[in-house]
Amino acid sequence: DDIAQGRAKSRACAVCHGPLGMGTAPDAPHLAAQPATYLSQQLRAFRSGERKHAVMNVIAKPLSDADIEQLSAWFASLQIEVRPPP
Amino acid sequence: DDIAQGRAKSRACAVCHGPLGMGTAPDAPHLAAQPATYLSQQLRAFRSGERKHAVMNVIAKPLSDADIEQLSAWFASLQIEVRPPP
Repeated sequence: DDIAQGRAKSRACAVCHGPLGMGTAPDAPHLAAQPATYLSQQLRAFRSGERKHAVMNVIAKPLSDADIEQLSAWFASLQIEVRPPP
Repeated sequence: DDIAQGRAKSRACAVCHGPLGMGTAPDAPHLAAQPATYLSQQLRAFRSGERKHAVMNVIAKPLSDADIEQLSAWFASLQIEVRPPP
C-alpha cells in the first residue's frame, strides 16, 4: 500500500528528516504527521523549481507523481502529540 | 522574553496553524517544534516573496525581523513526540 511503499522510498529523506520524520538538521523541518496535501504540494513545488532549495530541488527532480503521493502518505501517517508548554 | 512575545504575536497564525502549532487546514503545516532556523528562513522567504503562498505572503509582509525571531522561538519551543507506527 501507499504508506509501506512510501516508507521504503523514504530512506533518502531520513538523512536530513530522520527515520520517523523528525528532522536532524537546523534547517530541515519535521515531516512527521504533516498533512499529505501539504507534503505533496511542497514536493511538487521543489520538483518544478517553484520552491527553491539546493538539496530539495535535486532530490525531488526524479520523483514520479506516485513517489510523491506515497512519500506524502507515509510521513502523514505518522502521529505526533504536542506537549503543552510549561 | 522571545518565546512569550512570540506566543502573544501568534494569534493570527493560530487560525490555520492552531493555537499550539498543530495545523487545522489540509495545506497548513504543523509548526509545533519545527527548528527556529527553519521557521525564520521560511517567514523571511514568504516576506520577500521568494517563497510563494497567497496567504503567507500577505501575513509575512509586515513582520519585522524581531517578530520573525519571536514567532520562530515560540513555535520551536513547543515539544512534540512521534508515536512509532503500528
